Amino acid sequence: MRNLTLMTDLYQLTMMYGYYKCNMRNNMAVFDMFYRQNSEVTHYAVFAGLEQLIDYIENLHFDEEDLDYLRSLNLFDEGFIEMLRSFRFTGDIQAVPEGTIVFSNEPLIRVTAPIFEAQLIETALLNIINHQTLIATKASRVANAAVGDVVMEFGLRRAQGPDAGIYGARAAIIGGCDTTSNVFSGKKFGIPISGTHAHSWVMSFPDELSAFRAYADCFPNACLLLVDTFNVLKSGVPNAITVFKELREKGFEPKGIRLDSGDLAYLSRESRKMLDEAGFPNAKICVSGDLDEYLIRDLKLQGARIDTWGVGTKLITSSDCPALGGVYKLSAEIIDDKVISKIKISENPAKVTNPGVKKLMRVYDKDHMAVADLIALESDKFDPSKPLTLFDPIDTWKEMTLTEYTLRELHVPIFKNGERVYKCPSLNEIRAYCKQEMYSFWDEYKRLRNPHIYKVDLTESLWMLKQSMLKPH
Amino acid sequence: MRNLTLMTDLYQLTMMYGYYKCNMRNNMAVFDMFYRQNSEVTHYAVFAGLEQLIDYIENLHFDEEDLDYLRSLNLFDEGFIEMLRSFRFTGDIQAVPEGTIVFSNEPLIRVTAPIFEAQLIETALLNIINHQTLIATKASRVANAAVGDVVMEFGLRRAQGPDAGIYGARAAIIGGCDTTSNVFSGKKFGIPISGTHAHSWVMSFPDELSAFRAYADCFPNACLLLVDTFNVLKSGVPNAITVFKELREKGFEPKGIRLDSGDLAYLSRESRKMLDEAGFPNAKICVSGDLDEYLIRDLKLQGARIDTWGVGTKLITSSDCPALGGVYKLSAEIIDDKVISKIKISENPAKVTNPGVKKLMRVYDKDHMAVADLIALESDKFDPSKPLTLFDPIDTWKEMTLTEYTLRELHVPIFKNGERVYKCPSLNEIRAYCKQEMYSFWDEYKRLRNPHIYKVDLTESLWMLKQSMLKPH
Repeated sequence: MRNLTLMTDLYQLTMMYGYYKCNMRNNMAVFDMFYRQNSEVTHYAVFAGLEQLIDYIENLHFDEEDLDYLRSLNLFDEGFIEMLRSFRFTGDIQAVPEGTIVFSNEPLIRVTAPIFEAQLIETALLNIINHQTLIATKASRVANAAVGDVVMEFGLRRAQGPDAGIYGARAAIIGGCDTTSNVFSGKKFGIPISGTHAHSWVMSFPDELSAFRAYADCFPNACLLLVDTFNVLKSGVPNAITVFKELREKGFEPKGIRLDSGDLAYLSRESRKMLDEAGFPNAKICVSGDLDEYLIRDLKLQGARIDTWGVGTKLITSSDCPALGGVYKLSAEIIDDKVISKIKISENPAKVTNPGVKKLMRVYDKDHMAVADLIALESDKFDPSKPLTLFDPIDTWKEMTLTEYTLRELHVPIFKNGERVYKCPSLNEIRAYCKQEMYSFWDEYKRLRNPHIYKVDLTESLWMLKQSMLKPH
Repeated sequence: MRNLTLMTDLYQLTMMYGYYKCNMRNNMAVFDMFYRQNSEVTHYAVFAGLEQLIDYIENLHFDEEDLDYLRSLNLFDEGFIEMLRSFRFTGDIQAVPEGTIVFSNEPLIRVTAPIFEAQLIETALLNIINHQTLIATKASRVANAAVGDVVMEFGLRRAQGPDAGIYGARAAIIGGCDTTSNVFSGKKFGIPISGTHAHSWVMSFPDELSAFRAYADCFPNACLLLVDTFNVLKSGVPNAITVFKELREKGFEPKGIRLDSGDLAYLSRESRKMLDEAGFPNAKICVSGDLDEYLIRDLKLQGARIDTWGVGTKLITSSDCPALGGVYKLSAEIIDDKVISKIKISENPAKVTNPGVKKLMRVYDKDHMAVADLIALESDKFDPSKPLTLFDPIDTWKEMTLTEYTLRELHVPIFKNGERVYKCPSLNEIRAYCKQEMYSFWDEYKRLRNPHIYKVDLTESLWMLKQSMLKPH
């Protein structure tokens, strides 16, 4: 495993040095990771990346050459370098499980640790979670638009570097994609992989028909032919049908065709007719080429006859929202077992943080549909036999009282005193959980444009704490 | 080094299997890597990533567990698996050096290799070059907007995974950034690193002044204070000045202040005044917070007094153009030493490829300013003592004849028969070369919006070849 311990911002190390020099390094700090919504794309998000965050935390250590490098900066004294030599994470981490549907400002990860440790991990934690959560979210939008059709992740060549492709494929599966073209990710994560041939295959043969024949000979059981190298309807589909008939004579059924250019609504409808008339109603039509959730939705609305969607660049880079606005903010210090809540005030009310040691509750109605989330203080108690009143944290007169409801606490313990106490589910389990999470939200919240805003409220005690810290005394 | 051999699309492997089954695997193929412009951001691009591509090529090999995995797919026969076991790259690669200014449709990398090998490397080649070229390009726009000010790359926490941060920092330096906050990249590539403290440092102390004092005590030689935790002009800057005066009494000069929120034009001007009046005209003002080339330009136009720019999310993700449209297209086959040119025709003229084995020439005027690029056939000869006529490949009546000019061939040999024949320059050398490249282009080509379009023409021989292949016979 790569040692990513130095994958941090220099200011984390200078602050750690400062805490060490000021004898504050063991001050217990509580940090929340949450995201600030910066685009409609992240009205809801699919939390992902926790497994890689756990790997990172468990593997944290400064190599000898890391220490040599830090020494060479002439910023730190030898006592500090020695302290780094024995560095390991000793704190607690709570987080929502991967695949959970979450919303902006909700504490998704809570780190309680000596500030020396909590500070070091900020950058890598944000890097890993921001990336995978972003791609899982985008994938869930794409999968929602494809309503049940197979979605293949095809973006490796346009991903922002190797990890963006490798972990992006993992996140895409969590969010709802079915397969990836990325063989590395297939092996690493056990994801089903898919792919057939490119235009260069066809161009390497004297003509399209011989290219198709050669491909069918090699993969009689997995014959899916790319039909748009020359002309889809005049050459590609007729040649594919010729080869499919030959294949059938040999006792094999073709998989189908792929379209990678042209008007996919029209070409897919015409291709469908031709395949059906030739006796191949089960041959699938697969498309690719600059797809995203909006184009998939529009193609479906226009009656495209497409079975399988290969989605590349716009998914793997989340092109219309290429960064999740995830942040990591100090919410409390714990001194002599006493919690001292911290708040970051900003002129921009959206940037004022929620103070205190918090948990995250989801409120379901009697049909187990999600109604609202509640950011609560760890000490808040709930009595489900009594009505629950929710109110808007800004417009507090907007309130709602629930009588029949259930509550679920979303955080689970991940590390306790530096020891991992959480067993990561398999990728298949995470994907299935995410699907189930999706079912518990009304479609209105999942609308691609202008979704209905899901309620994320504060408990009264948290609201009062925040108000008391906002008002000057 | 990580083995990224499996970091490819499945269809590369299925095509390789096909070529193996058809006894075509040793057919020599020529592929060009070039990009299609998909945004104003990539009117020109700064080529980057070659060193990592070379590492990848040199390290190509299938591990035993890779082979086991491929066997488990039940797609391939044992002969093929055996062939992969001894796989190595035996071909030739030509490319432009890192840091070269390049344009869309220009062949940036030319791979000549058995199709079996040339196909495998497509995906990783594109992944690596697309990513680093994109970020180097964005960085050059940011650095151009900052006209000589120091630019710090701050984006690790929002990068699309670890590699996007690590190699993104490298690319940002190539494009013109001066430092990075990313300690890992600092160590790996010898990049200067920078960073001081965050709001959490200030919030961990009873008040701002004691936080500043503590920081100054730890870093008397590198005291740069973040002044916007509470109120920049009423609290942050006055407290910083107090601490700067104490520092000076101890014989140290402060570095300056950082602003991370609020209106940076106004706050920087007011802060500058306060620092100057207090006797700290050399204290720098450094800013961060959602910066990109446009905001930097606008802040400068509004008289902001900013010395140093910390640029994060929008640089490290190239947020308004998060993918370079780089592709890898078959341009020829070589059979019995005879070149058979290949072309991919598309209804969209912009997607028709340039056939043949090609080189790339840059034409300079007598002042050594770039005038145009010429995509040429490898066999094209140039006689600089004779006038050179350039013509537009679409509107061929647009032509220009040059008498005093020089020509430079941009491709250099990287691999020859599988052996590396190229010594990678240091990152500093690449950065200096890129700067020099920048000087050889008029500002008109580098304008952020609506740049003047740089001429990329075809030689007459290439143009004729292309025309002959486009016309049906």
